[in-house]
Amino acid sequence: MFSNTRVLTVEWGHCDPAGIVFNPRFFEYFDWSTALLVAAATGTDKSALLKRYDAAGIPLVDTRAVFRAPLRFGEEARIVSSVAALRGSSFDVEHKLFKGETLCVEGFETRVWTAFDVEGRIRARELPEDVRKALAGG
Amino acid sequence: MFSNTRVLTVEWGHCDPAGIVFNPRFFEYFDWSTALLVAAATGTDKSALLKRYDAAGIPLVDTRAVFRAPLRFGEEARIVSSVAALRGSSFDVEHKLFKGETLCVEGFETRVWTAFDVEGRIRARELPEDVRKALAGG
Amino acid sequence: MFSNTRVLTVEWGHCDPAGIVFNPRFFEYFDWSTALLVAAATGTDKSALLKRYDAAGIPLVDTRAVFRAPLRFGEEARIVSSVAALRGSSFDVEHKLFKGETLCVEGFETRVWTAFDVEGRIRARELPEDVRKALAGG
Amino acid sequence: MFSNTRVLTVEWGHCDPAGIVFNPRFFEYFDWSTALLVAAATGTDKSALLKRYDAAGIPLVDTRAVFRAPLRFGEEARIVSSVAALRGSSFDVEHKLFKGETLCVEGFETRVWTAFDVEGRIRARELPEDVRKALAGG
Repeated sequence: MFSNTRVLTVEWGHCDPAGIVFNPRFFEYFDWSTALLVAAATGTDKSALLKRYDAAGIPLVDTRAVFRAPLRFGEEARIVSSVAALRGSSFDVEHKLFKGETLCVEGFETRVWTAFDVEGRIRARELPEDVRKALAGG
Repeated sequence: MFSNTRVLTVEWGHCDPAGIVFNPRFFEYFDWSTALLVAAATGTDKSALLKRYDAAGIPLVDTRAVFRAPLRFGEEARIVSSVAALRGSSFDVEHKLFKGETLCVEGFETRVWTAFDVEGRIRARELPEDVRKALAGG
Repeated sequence: MFSNTRVLTVEWGHCDPAGIVFNPRFFEYFDWSTALLVAAATGTDKSALLKRYDAAGIPLVDTRAVFRAPLRFGEEARIVSSVAALRGSSFDVEHKLFKGETLCVEGFETRVWTAFDVEGRIRARELPEDVRKALAGG
Repeated sequence: MFSNTRVLTVEWGHCDPAGIVFNPRFFEYFDWSTALLVAAATGTDKSALLKRYDAAGIPLVDTRAVFRAPLRFGEEARIVSSVAALRGSSFDVEHKLFKGETLCVEGFETRVWTAFDVEGRIRARELPEDVRKALAGG
């Protein structure tokens, strides 16, 4: 399965009065990590990909995170994101966020491929075959 | 166990280019819903509570969310938050977010009571007995 | 000119490691305050209003804020928002954010009424006459 | 005066239902751009700098932004941040955000150097002499 790594720096504004990353920010990190994973797999950035397939987005239907160690502003995080499962219209992604060698946060996502129907509602759609192949790692 | 309900309106800036709430915002909603739950249970707002017990915060150690139906800006969400379990230094909260009668998002949290140690690190601490009683529902 | 007031509570996640509201959050507050001002003036919420006039949004073209006193989580803010000027396709809004009687933040916005053109670009458009009248205060 | 440039990619979650960057995100971009400017000037990241001088933060007291052209998710922004003025306890920063050669957003900030007083209130303090020299460009 396809995997992608990115590095980011924790910003002042990501942190709360306890001085550590405010938990919703990790879901922001993971959301864009999945966008970058799909972009790296398909060779097409999210914006172009949605246009090409007339897709509405790749929303979350289920997510979980386990927080093992806090991060502070100025610290560097390395996020390793991997496709963990592929189904008809959905797929799973696992994120591991490291500070140095320390595993700080693990994230798990189930994402669904969607399009707008004629009434403008967001509907699940079969994963395009070449997207599926790309996420499978070729 | 103690339970609390609040109502909020989804804002334009909570929504993404697909026109629906960007998933990390739900974790913001739930984070503050837990703060309000604890405040309602103890009769003390989060700020005063942390000061009274010299606590660092009540960080998440584990969370899960299931997204059943999307929300759009201008829509009203009702969040019912309930204490689901109480342990030595941690407790569980369940959130159910409704639009009218439709259950849109379910959230599950494990929170831990913490204080700063002498080196400024955040450490789990036993839940104060009166906080525990309040969360249990009196 | 039309004016509207709303009250909100500063949340834990709005605050930074210094324990005070992270400045971009004030622009979130003001953005939605303007949406509520327009909704109160027209009697139509932002979502319905954009649909009715096939508008893309009411983006900022110019904004300024002056920060006089900090806010902390748990504190209540009262925001008074007023239309300050009306022009062909744009209008100005002033926001005054109070904690009790203390003026903490002043915000100034110039907003432009927009629609998507045939190529999907966002373009300024003449303010609809009834929106203009409503913003003028009837 | 000292100047620093950074490049970032606009994320899906930075954008609103009109498909363009939600305006408060630009203030997030600029906030961290100023942190990076100060870090580049002093050779010390914000976290270490605040500790070294026992400072509370470098909050905004006044800011303005002019929005000339929108940005969409997946687009790359280049932000050029420059010290524009230095005073006793405050300094000004100008940000220019470009997409390619197009100037999209201009930001102006007045920042103040602060410390906590004995009662935990945030107070303006004289800019440390070596910080001032670094911001002046050596």
